[in-house]
Amino acid sequence: MVKLNLSGIFPPLPTSFDKDENLLPDKIRHNIEKLSVYGLSGFLILGSNGEQVMLSEKERSEAVAAAREALPKDKLLLAGTGGQSTRETIRLTKAAAAEGADAVLVINPFYFKGLMTHEALVKHYLDVADVSPVPVIVYNMPGNTGIDMTAAMVIEMAAHPNIVGMKESGGNVVKMGEVLRSVRPDFQVLAGGAGFLLPALSMGAVGGILALSNIAPAQAIEIYRLFLAGDMVNARALQHKMIPVNAAVTARWGVPALKAAMDHLGLYGGPSRRPLLPLKNDIMEQLLKLISESEIKQFPV
Amino acid sequence: MVKLNLSGIFPPLPTSFDKDENLLPDKIRHNIEKLSVYGLSGFLILGSNGEQVMLSEKERSEAVAAAREALPKDKLLLAGTGGQSTRETIRLTKAAAAEGADAVLVINPFYFKGLMTHEALVKHYLDVADVSPVPVIVYNMPGNTGIDMTAAMVIEMAAHPNIVGMKESGGNVVKMGEVLRSVRPDFQVLAGGAGFLLPALSMGAVGGILALSNIAPAQAIEIYRLFLAGDMVNARALQHKMIPVNAAVTARWGVPALKAAMDHLGLYGGPSRRPLLPLKNDIMEQLLKLISESEIKQFPV
Amino acid sequence: MVKLNLSGIFPPLPTSFDKDENLLPDKIRHNIEKLSVYGLSGFLILGSNGEQVMLSEKERSEAVAAAREALPKDKLLLAGTGGQSTRETIRLTKAAAAEGADAVLVINPFYFKGLMTHEALVKHYLDVADVSPVPVIVYNMPGNTGIDMTAAMVIEMAAHPNIVGMKESGGNVVKMGEVLRSVRPDFQVLAGGAGFLLPALSMGAVGGILALSNIAPAQAIEIYRLFLAGDMVNARALQHKMIPVNAAVTARWGVPALKAAMDHLGLYGGPSRRPLLPLKNDIMEQLLKLISESEIKQFPV
Amino acid sequence: MVKLNLSGIFPPLPTSFDKDENLLPDKIRHNIEKLSVYGLSGFLILGSNGEQVMLSEKERSEAVAAAREALPKDKLLLAGTGGQSTRETIRLTKAAAAEGADAVLVINPFYFKGLMTHEALVKHYLDVADVSPVPVIVYNMPGNTGIDMTAAMVIEMAAHPNIVGMKESGGNVVKMGEVLRSVRPDFQVLAGGAGFLLPALSMGAVGGILALSNIAPAQAIEIYRLFLAGDMVNARALQHKMIPVNAAVTARWGVPALKAAMDHLGLYGGPSRRPLLPLKNDIMEQLLKLISESEIKQFPV
Repeated sequence: MVKLNLSGIFPPLPTSFDKDENLLPDKIRHNIEKLSVYGLSGFLILGSNGEQVMLSEKERSEAVAAAREALPKDKLLLAGTGGQSTRETIRLTKAAAAEGADAVLVINPFYFKGLMTHEALVKHYLDVADVSPVPVIVYNMPGNTGIDMTAAMVIEMAAHPNIVGMKESGGNVVKMGEVLRSVRPDFQVLAGGAGFLLPALSMGAVGGILALSNIAPAQAIEIYRLFLAGDMVNARALQHKMIPVNAAVTARWGVPALKAAMDHLGLYGGPSRRPLLPLKNDIMEQLLKLISESEIKQFPV
Repeated sequence: MVKLNLSGIFPPLPTSFDKDENLLPDKIRHNIEKLSVYGLSGFLILGSNGEQVMLSEKERSEAVAAAREALPKDKLLLAGTGGQSTRETIRLTKAAAAEGADAVLVINPFYFKGLMTHEALVKHYLDVADVSPVPVIVYNMPGNTGIDMTAAMVIEMAAHPNIVGMKESGGNVVKMGEVLRSVRPDFQVLAGGAGFLLPALSMGAVGGILALSNIAPAQAIEIYRLFLAGDMVNARALQHKMIPVNAAVTARWGVPALKAAMDHLGLYGGPSRRPLLPLKNDIMEQLLKLISESEIKQFPV
Repeated sequence: MVKLNLSGIFPPLPTSFDKDENLLPDKIRHNIEKLSVYGLSGFLILGSNGEQVMLSEKERSEAVAAAREALPKDKLLLAGTGGQSTRETIRLTKAAAAEGADAVLVINPFYFKGLMTHEALVKHYLDVADVSPVPVIVYNMPGNTGIDMTAAMVIEMAAHPNIVGMKESGGNVVKMGEVLRSVRPDFQVLAGGAGFLLPALSMGAVGGILALSNIAPAQAIEIYRLFLAGDMVNARALQHKMIPVNAAVTARWGVPALKAAMDHLGLYGGPSRRPLLPLKNDIMEQLLKLISESEIKQFPV
Repeated sequence: MVKLNLSGIFPPLPTSFDKDENLLPDKIRHNIEKLSVYGLSGFLILGSNGEQVMLSEKERSEAVAAAREALPKDKLLLAGTGGQSTRETIRLTKAAAAEGADAVLVINPFYFKGLMTHEALVKHYLDVADVSPVPVIVYNMPGNTGIDMTAAMVIEMAAHPNIVGMKESGGNVVKMGEVLRSVRPDFQVLAGGAGFLLPALSMGAVGGILALSNIAPAQAIEIYRLFLAGDMVNARALQHKMIPVNAAVTARWGVPALKAAMDHLGLYGGPSRRPLLPLKNDIMEQLLKLISESEIKQFPV
């Protein structure tokens, strides 16, 4: 029995702010409504692209509530709730569940890098899973945290019945295989980046939480569909086509570029919170060129 | 005119918790009182050793207030107030100043590593300094943040009249020299670790914020005093002697070891917040052996 | 017109030494003969697993000559010829070609890390390709070199008609896609590790140079064949099964483990040159267990 | 009894090439003669700045022989002889001793990073020291090797009577202290960079092998002399002054910049071997400006 079916594509929605960096719950709802016509499996609110680390606890609850309101009941709402302490993570997890999150995505604590041993991290996730009202998904994001959780850690965490999957954002497809060969059959791995969606699926991932799917939901879903249909040639061609624009809105220019792309395509992007800076003009030009070359379409008004 | 004299030794006080990880302001006061007889220049509350990242905003204010209460008015209270957003950092900075901090120690935002460019980080510090009611000290801690701020960044920050110094915890003595040769004469560099106190002083640092000075205030001050007196031979001998115990309570076993040492020596250490784990028995034995060999004395009852 | 067809599986053959660490060309021939019945596309001599960096120039020529002697003419011989200077790389390249190598695999210079800019590395490869008598394959091995050549570098190198492919050993499948979408159609990417063979093939790689194929040639070829046949389910199952033993003879315990496995399975492994040390007994036991669980078969006598 | 007195300043001499990258032993002699009037303690030939990794074994012997010829008998000649295998390191060590080196500076093997354990590296050095005809100096250069040897490794190596010192080029002054407090009294630590000469001396180093001393021998010696005289104020002022030009000819622009500076100042610099590229015009201008600001003088004709 799979508790939660994580198959398919989930956008990690950016959090909307006005020009003074105040939270705009209305724009969160607006974006979810616009994106909900594409056959996505649900949304992640308050992931890395959601600037989670920049929100107060109160704002986090408001963002989850807004997302839940806008999202049809048959779509999954995942909420990012990882903090630096087990205590904070549990508090955020309970709050997100109370606001209607179906599952929580928990990034590992990472400030005290030298002390984040196998034992410390495994215990942290088990402690959170023990009391979480909703299933827990492990979130590995070494580019931001500076810690790359090992397959051995995830395998040990996966023995907990309330830990149902992992998002691997480091692009380590070998680790995905190591995990999948060793865990219970219903533990689900999600790709954390559109650049390696097809290789991840080939290794056994069931889908992805992909920044790119905020601006190119149709294309992300199409790669997934072509893979399921066994059409590797066209899946690969579309995967190749998406790589540059995906890099632009993730590793290269990050959340501000993703938001700028959303603004350009007919969603609400808006500013990021400082110290994230708006794109410079020359970067904006390069971004628009990459979007144009990728044949990503404007969202209908 | 020096706005704030940062010369000498400052302990970065651990934050006290009970066995259920609840904040204990009384124990903060208790530790400061016990440590205040040694000629320290003041204290840092809510640094890395203060588990700042694990406290709620309300708890942070309580901790600053408790420290201020216990600390004589002629001693400086520095408070760690860096957050992931400029907005949060400003909020924490104003709150700490309101509770009586004389200056704030601001660690750089680090979650969005790829976007923390020279421009983004400099603007962040200038934005904070513009509105901070108290002087700002830049805090570079690459071991925890994964970002090593450059001399060029610090030199540009140091042009702001409200940015009065930096704490360098990476042990990069060359960077200290690069900064000091280029900034206004009253900009002050502090060593961020007791293992390199003497080399830092030789390069021009005016003192240090040293985890070790929580358990060995007399020895830390003595290294500083011997250096000022030109007695390099004895300064070096004491510096050498302190290296192993300092490594034990910092890079090697971290805050839990520092707290265990405090408990052993007659201060209040207590537990850390999870995911930091208590020391295992064999590590505890090694720690006590290192303390014993270092000839650090028990605090008077 | 493809100058050289790199499709399929190539073992990077370890170099054979006696107990006094002297080169044994006979054992190189012996291993190639034993491995040549499995449908491999050829061999790499003097790769990382060949301890290339530990051989004198004279020994390198002897090793290439021995391999060529043993290898059927219709199988490709690739030889590792990268050195720290362009001058040495060219000298080694010409020597390997003279001894019968069909192509050379050139690892980037890496000692002067800070100076290995885009421009310096691209020029290095173009200079080598200009004078190489045989086609050049770019070799990216960040785990050993500490330098991760970018897609942009490889794309620029691939414009040279004598640079025909790349071996990517960092497991970066996104980079494979970035390269393949931008280069001429006959530029070939090879997976540099068996742990990510299937994901690499899904991204467009044409095969792999795989340490594992020294001890499990049948299984490595079978993953490749299943992928070509569109049988992703069985390809994935076999890929998963091979991950632990592959990790054991590569990242985890390295060349000494690969050689120990070869000795165990009926090939000649023998010692590595120091500072590589023989496996300790407990590691040897774990290795044999992993081999046994992987169902890799003994080579026929 | 100190076997070899390493006190004072040693330039790590660049190796001279003509415009076709051929070795020029005459220019090695010429540079040593010009530099020998400044009170240097000797020279290092074939260090990192000597492009050791780019020379053939035959060229290395020629370079050592040339240096020995030019150097007065009462000055020490150190020769870099570290290779990737213990076997090669021993061969190079014996060859350098035969050509007149007084001691060898042995960088650790680093290609097989994952296998360079404490045990493997310690055994490597002990094996080399066992058969070296001259004393061995351990050379730690993490910026180039990607491996940072620990204090514990060096302390264990220092128990060998033929291992007489270490060159620390990572700038880790804490490690210098850790080593010095634990080894026999005659084990000598040398700073590997002029940027941290004064802090290293304060921690107990006896001198340095400093790229900067190729172009500013008088200044490097003066920092050392001022420190010995207890004049920390002037030592620090000169140390600060030397930082930018030192960075320019080391970490920032490397050997080509050091050679360009030598050409400018009246020594022979000449080209580096590719892939090291000549300085671009704008970098050259910046370099000359830094030299001018540092007040380094032209060498007498």
